[in-house]
Amino acid sequence: MNMESDFHMAKGEGETSYVNNSRIQQKALLETEVVLEKAVREVLCMDLHQPAMTVVDLGCSSGQNTLFFVSKVIKVAGHDSDEKSRCNPVELQFFLNDLPGNNFNHVFRSLERFKESITARHKGNTLLPPFYIAGLPGSYYTRLFPRQSCHLFHSSFCLHWRSRVPAGLEEGGREYLNEGNIYIANTTPAGVAELYQRQFQNDMLLFLKLRYEELVFGGQMVLTFLGRKYEDIYNDGHLNHPWGLLARSLQSLVEEGLVNKEKLDSFNLPIYTPSINEVKAVIGQSELFNVSHITLFDSNWDPHDDSQGDDAHNTIQSAINIAKSLRAVFGPLLASHFGESLLNEIFKKCAHYVTEHLAERGEGKYLLICLSLKRT
Amino acid sequence: MNMESDFHMAKGEGETSYVNNSRIQQKALLETEVVLEKAVREVLCMDLHQPAMTVVDLGCSSGQNTLFFVSKVIKVAGHDSDEKSRCNPVELQFFLNDLPGNNFNHVFRSLERFKESITARHKGNTLLPPFYIAGLPGSYYTRLFPRQSCHLFHSSFCLHWRSRVPAGLEEGGREYLNEGNIYIANTTPAGVAELYQRQFQNDMLLFLKLRYEELVFGGQMVLTFLGRKYEDIYNDGHLNHPWGLLARSLQSLVEEGLVNKEKLDSFNLPIYTPSINEVKAVIGQSELFNVSHITLFDSNWDPHDDSQGDDAHNTIQSAINIAKSLRAVFGPLLASHFGESLLNEIFKKCAHYVTEHLAERGEGKYLLICLSLKRT
Repeated sequence: MNMESDFHMAKGEGETSYVNNSRIQQKALLETEVVLEKAVREVLCMDLHQPAMTVVDLGCSSGQNTLFFVSKVIKVAGHDSDEKSRCNPVELQFFLNDLPGNNFNHVFRSLERFKESITARHKGNTLLPPFYIAGLPGSYYTRLFPRQSCHLFHSSFCLHWRSRVPAGLEEGGREYLNEGNIYIANTTPAGVAELYQRQFQNDMLLFLKLRYEELVFGGQMVLTFLGRKYEDIYNDGHLNHPWGLLARSLQSLVEEGLVNKEKLDSFNLPIYTPSINEVKAVIGQSELFNVSHITLFDSNWDPHDDSQGDDAHNTIQSAINIAKSLRAVFGPLLASHFGESLLNEIFKKCAHYVTEHLAERGEGKYLLICLSLKRT
Repeated sequence: MNMESDFHMAKGEGETSYVNNSRIQQKALLETEVVLEKAVREVLCMDLHQPAMTVVDLGCSSGQNTLFFVSKVIKVAGHDSDEKSRCNPVELQFFLNDLPGNNFNHVFRSLERFKESITARHKGNTLLPPFYIAGLPGSYYTRLFPRQSCHLFHSSFCLHWRSRVPAGLEEGGREYLNEGNIYIANTTPAGVAELYQRQFQNDMLLFLKLRYEELVFGGQMVLTFLGRKYEDIYNDGHLNHPWGLLARSLQSLVEEGLVNKEKLDSFNLPIYTPSINEVKAVIGQSELFNVSHITLFDSNWDPHDDSQGDDAHNTIQSAINIAKSLRAVFGPLLASHFGESLLNEIFKKCAHYVTEHLAERGEGKYLLICLSLKRT
């Protein structure tokens, strides 16, 4: 699997597209906007050393969420230059980053309408700061910018993705270490779980080092990604992600003879959901950033269920919603390994197992870590 | 016609695509590379006031030419940091700019291979400076960057495009002023030619003002675009561009009843080819730039004819080549006005009239102005 060239969200603007199935990601943006606002304000009041404030969204994807972030920063910058007057008016240079497989054309073609709507929204109220939006293709596990040229990095619902399937798990010729699973499950050997942990540590350390080089002194990062509540890597599975149910869907396709067993055994998700302590440990080890803020919050698996409780009100409809949101994210990855033609079957099974799960255990919850860091 | 959203080169990678029909544009890049090299060297040796040198290609399009420019700048920057040692090693931040209709996805997806090839080419010879490539959608007749954030602008084979069909020529409800023509031809009224000239002056003045704001003091621009040899706006028609033959193709489709006469009368190309004196006059009027270099050179209409003479060796093949290269550039514009279904017919006619022209008058020549400017 070549993450840089093959990995992307579900394309197009149809029923199964990411564009139309990214409400969970949007809710995370709303949940964390206070943290983002604070970081933007603080950066706006520093000496920028440059004619403009450089703001980067890492893993921007393509859809309304991409520009939601941009409009948020513009709003704060406009408001602060106008009313508080302690910060100078500023021009904003945005970079929207994602892997080269992302549909940047879609983002770029929506900019004209976005600019019109934001001009209309700011009319008469607050100052609209001049802003410029560029697209930057590339993995955030590589250098993306000249040294000390950025002021603020943002990344939402992305940093649980690893740079690769954990090293040691994908080597050819060896037996499959994580048989029947696609992530850490109850039957995953401890050695495999350690490979996942090590991959997280290496990736996160690399990420911090790269962004440290690119940020100006005092620059900030606001990062939101899937995490775990408990330290026990096995205990959190069913609360935390529905990928165990996705594995079960694939297992049942193996039983029906539609998927080759080896095909399943050789597939592992390039993902890891750390606990807060694991995140803090890597940041401490790096000695490059101070943690201004760190919290854990949850979000229902069902993107359209905004209730606070643990009950799924309509398990069948919820399961359909959940399967659709999983397909928008994992569909292309599964298609490239198992074949496009199996996608409908995989997510039909998935909806079935999610329904069962919701009936037995109630609404599942994603756990998200929101983190605000300041460069030392 | 909405230039910002509708205008682009012929898409895809097929036989009629711009990607496969942009050799004329490539030849202009080769012809002007000495001028570009000089500008890059001079900018590299100034105080950049920023951690990196910001280099912008305006109207980058999508294809090999886009990255040819990038590789040229990298080569000069690498060479200069390594051998001459009077200039500091530098990081390069590239912005590839074009209208939002441009296929940025295609450019972005070719970057991985580009990086590999450039790393291989620099191996052992010269230092490869770190470089980062972003895409920036938008018209260069608007502000694209924060103030004083750029060091070098480049634009090749683009600035003959106007921001719009000349003001006054496209107004609804009035009679058509440039009947039967699509640009300035012998039967074009003097008033229409003046509208074209005025549009050029306004656009060019705006362009200079915008770039002046975006460039640092001492920043440079290298601009190559179609121009005229003689001051007489009517005299240069057949030497200078084959759009008169394109108009004749459309006229003959009107005669055959395939195109409505009003459809032709209402169409005018948003283009203008100034003389060197006209260009100098606008720059002088702006008082924003000093001219370091200005030349006129010619290039055969036939992209595959590299000979110096005036004879077309194989008029039929040359005419086919010329019609293809015209279609790659003007095809989308003609399709949006006359309908996609007429394109084959238009360019079949066009090849016919070009053949006639070549037999009567020999190989046609484009005239190109290459201009190097320094910000005051």
